Amino acid sequence: MSELELRFALPDWVEEFLAQAPKVLPAANDRMRFVIDLARQNIRRKTGGPFAAAIFDETGHLIAPGINIVESSNCSILHAEMVAIALAQKRLRRYDISDGGKSRHELVTAAEPCAMCFGAIPWSGLSRVVCGAREEDVRGIGFDEGPKLPDWAAALESRGIQVVRDILRQENVSVLEEYLRLGGRIYNGGSHRDNT
Amino acid sequence: MSELELRFALPDWVEEFLAQAPKVLPAANDRMRFVIDLARQNIRRKTGGPFAAAIFDETGHLIAPGINIVESSNCSILHAEMVAIALAQKRLRRYDISDGGKSRHELVTAAEPCAMCFGAIPWSGLSRVVCGAREEDVRGIGFDEGPKLPDWAAALESRGIQVVRDILRQENVSVLEEYLRLGGRIYNGGSHRDNT
Repeated sequence: MSELELRFALPDWVEEFLAQAPKVLPAANDRMRFVIDLARQNIRRKTGGPFAAAIFDETGHLIAPGINIVESSNCSILHAEMVAIALAQKRLRRYDISDGGKSRHELVTAAEPCAMCFGAIPWSGLSRVVCGAREEDVRGIGFDEGPKLPDWAAALESRGIQVVRDILRQENVSVLEEYLRLGGRIYNGGSHRDNT
Repeated sequence: MSELELRFALPDWVEEFLAQAPKVLPAANDRMRFVIDLARQNIRRKTGGPFAAAIFDETGHLIAPGINIVESSNCSILHAEMVAIALAQKRLRRYDISDGGKSRHELVTAAEPCAMCFGAIPWSGLSRVVCGAREEDVRGIGFDEGPKLPDWAAALESRGIQVVRDILRQENVSVLEEYLRLGGRIYNGGSHRDNT
């Protein structure tokens, strides 16, 4: 592989996980449960942090999953939301998921986006962001959410991107807590600290 | 390539460009000139927008270049700064460029970072960000910088990341202007508009 090439892959278990999951999830809570299961598998199989995301079209068809692969890929930008956005754009073959406003897609994420993922959303062509755990839940187990606008949800709404919060929040918090119990690493920008 | 894999490459001309460039640029202005040349090549060869970046170590060794490959890769997250961060981490084989604070690296960018790239910087392990054009220059030709903290530079500084602005600002603005003259596309999140 050339020095000027980037190549990333999700861990092998994701393919099997997807093969066993429904392809269409019309109910919002089912879409979030799918994301929670993905995050839980990621921590139990020790392939990453307690974060997952997925992009669905308006009828609830899964377009792309995402899990945090920062450590396994040695790449700090590969948060779950970023992976889901990039995989969805690859599948749809366009960098604007909405195709110039012709279609609406939602990002379902286990936790409210960090500063980077928040900033990536307006460029992606997503129409809606559905969040599980609150940013204070994520900070509560030691992760940093970065320097975010205090009114980040309003900033997205003002750009026509709907924000829905607290969907199955407690179930998402339970994944964060399980990660702590399993001794998962809490890594933040420029520093590492083991949760031991 | 699997549906769960991502693969991106810089355009072919970058390899030749790098082969002809010095490997070490001890002077700050020379590092910015390198980035300006990269941005100019990108627009003249029609391989992307008027944005480039590069990461250097403390002695001025080039670690990784970056150019905006959003359109050619169909991936909205691949701004020049993100590409440079990911390529640097690949080369250094770690997701924390600073290696736990043991080394200092700077990101030199043709323009002040958008909301996403700003949010990516604290996760990268970079110690310094050196900017050419101001965000108002970028907005001036029609690009959107996203919902940014008004005091974004102070927010980075408070995390120990130095921000240096206005390095060869006018030369960077001249690349933005050339892009407009060449009829380059001004694309923003979820919408497209041709500069014609």
